[in-house]
Amino acid sequence: MDVVLARDAGGALQYRPMYEPLREWVVMHMASRGVTCTPDEVFITNGNQQGLSILSRVFMDAGDPAVIEDITFTGVQQATIGRGAHIYTVPTDLETGIDTDALESVFASVNPRLAVIIPGHHNPLGVSISDEKRARLAALAAQYHVPIIEDDPYSMLRFEGTPQQAVKAYDRAGYVFYLGSFSKMLAPGLRLGWLIAPRDLMPKITIIRESLDLESSTLTQRAVYEFLQRGGLAPHLTRLNATNAQRCAAMLDALDTHLSDLAHWTTPDGGLFVWLTLPAHIDTWVLAERAIREAGVAFVPGGAFDVHGGSTNCLRLNFSAVNTDSIREGVARLAALVHAWV
Amino acid sequence: MDVVLARDAGGALQYRPMYEPLREWVVMHMASRGVTCTPDEVFITNGNQQGLSILSRVFMDAGDPAVIEDITFTGVQQATIGRGAHIYTVPTDLETGIDTDALESVFASVNPRLAVIIPGHHNPLGVSISDEKRARLAALAAQYHVPIIEDDPYSMLRFEGTPQQAVKAYDRAGYVFYLGSFSKMLAPGLRLGWLIAPRDLMPKITIIRESLDLESSTLTQRAVYEFLQRGGLAPHLTRLNATNAQRCAAMLDALDTHLSDLAHWTTPDGGLFVWLTLPAHIDTWVLAERAIREAGVAFVPGGAFDVHGGSTNCLRLNFSAVNTDSIREGVARLAALVHAWV
Repeated sequence: MDVVLARDAGGALQYRPMYEPLREWVVMHMASRGVTCTPDEVFITNGNQQGLSILSRVFMDAGDPAVIEDITFTGVQQATIGRGAHIYTVPTDLETGIDTDALESVFASVNPRLAVIIPGHHNPLGVSISDEKRARLAALAAQYHVPIIEDDPYSMLRFEGTPQQAVKAYDRAGYVFYLGSFSKMLAPGLRLGWLIAPRDLMPKITIIRESLDLESSTLTQRAVYEFLQRGGLAPHLTRLNATNAQRCAAMLDALDTHLSDLAHWTTPDGGLFVWLTLPAHIDTWVLAERAIREAGVAFVPGGAFDVHGGSTNCLRLNFSAVNTDSIREGVARLAALVHAWV
Repeated sequence: MDVVLARDAGGALQYRPMYEPLREWVVMHMASRGVTCTPDEVFITNGNQQGLSILSRVFMDAGDPAVIEDITFTGVQQATIGRGAHIYTVPTDLETGIDTDALESVFASVNPRLAVIIPGHHNPLGVSISDEKRARLAALAAQYHVPIIEDDPYSMLRFEGTPQQAVKAYDRAGYVFYLGSFSKMLAPGLRLGWLIAPRDLMPKITIIRESLDLESSTLTQRAVYEFLQRGGLAPHLTRLNATNAQRCAAMLDALDTHLSDLAHWTTPDGGLFVWLTLPAHIDTWVLAERAIREAGVAFVPGGAFDVHGGSTNCLRLNFSAVNTDSIREGVARLAALVHAWV
């Protein structure tokens, strides 16, 4: 911030076109995920939710068919169901992710205007799909001419090894639209992200964006670029992922200690979330209220993510925001409530 | 920025509810404009365009009737016409502003879902409406139960004297929705503003905002508040308005020197804009291209603001962005093109 304000002064605080060096950085970053694109295919957003809301408006009007996963981030529901889509869902398996056969059936039968998929470290399920499924998704999008929106804020949060290639990396036909964000890999309070779309859609995307809130902060775009071009991101991610891995391990260990008799849960290799399944008679909407009030423990009830109102015995835990001692204590308190459930 | 990051560290970069001290500052600020409200009636936005796009979604679906001024900011057109409104327009006079009799006729005959009005230092006309008209607008909104959105980013940019009371100041019934912004009075690159709406609409406003882009930058909200609570705004506005007044005077003087034989124009007492009317045969869409290419002078053609495609011999000049020498030179070059028009 200091560097940008000292160097660019008032220019950093004015209306401005998108910051070209940041677009060029995104091109380089996407290359590391297997995606070939040019700066004029990069559109700067205030994060993935804005990217979703823009692309939803590009492709879909109220009443149009759209496909989402049956368990998915609430913001994906808002950008589709919330805009009046005629919604179709496909199952997402806890171990293998989205059911691509089911997706093909929907593509073949109803010709949807778009599909929204979270391929990496899924919110809320934590699952990442295989490279084979990524290739198949891109192929299905091309074969059935259905735009697939790849909502991908978590992929750089892999505990170990290289982040997977994006679904967009397998897209030769231009039917995969990528949403990336600095929120999870750097800081959500910055409100900065990007989308990748073909050049010929940029005028439409620009007009929709202008109608929503004009443009992203000039100052923030430049400050984030300063951080990136100084090489700040790689060491930050190394530290972030090491910390997240420790916290996730502490959470899984505490779950094993306190809830292995009653529950099962996912074992993430990155991201922020563990998905916990409790006995069918436990209503996690009620449990959430009691956990906050009686135990000082917060989580998101599974029903919030389930498009059809199921998963009421499930919940999403986030291991990224508190230290390992608090995680162990929190899981213990939550387990006590579950064991006392009548 | 330094103070906030040193004090709040990571907390300034996280997801957070709206920053309460900023909402409280807005309450205090609105009191200076005659508006009584509470912090929970203040919703933080990324500027007035976002406020418009949110309120448009609160009140209006595609096909619904809406009222705007016949000459108005393009963003107002995008948030209404661009969302499929059945649009009605009312005339806005260069000297006295919106025709409130015409507005009452529309309110009485078609029961619109909303009206959008720019009461102070109008974009692009520069006109401000009288206190009597402000009171009448609030009364009409209440009488006909039509929400009036008061788009008010310019009112603090009055060259001399106290800014006028807001239209919202006359609203007892809760039918006036105020949009305020830090863009013009502080810096557009911050992307920060607010809207005022009744408490019982806040859940709906919050959901719409979440679906669009979640929330405003935590860091920016806190940094702007630091500037405000240290008393930075009043001296900044004094300097800004003195500079704008000088630049406006230079522009009016240059227009008088170079174009008094062919054109007439508005005489603003604040804001950013002069509205220039040329002979009817001059097409300012064409003139704009030639002015940029041949004279290095930019302006916005009047047709961009005219909902019905008229005003093609008019244009909007902005006196705020360049110094007085450049303004004199720019007007001289523009006048030469106009005089050479065939």
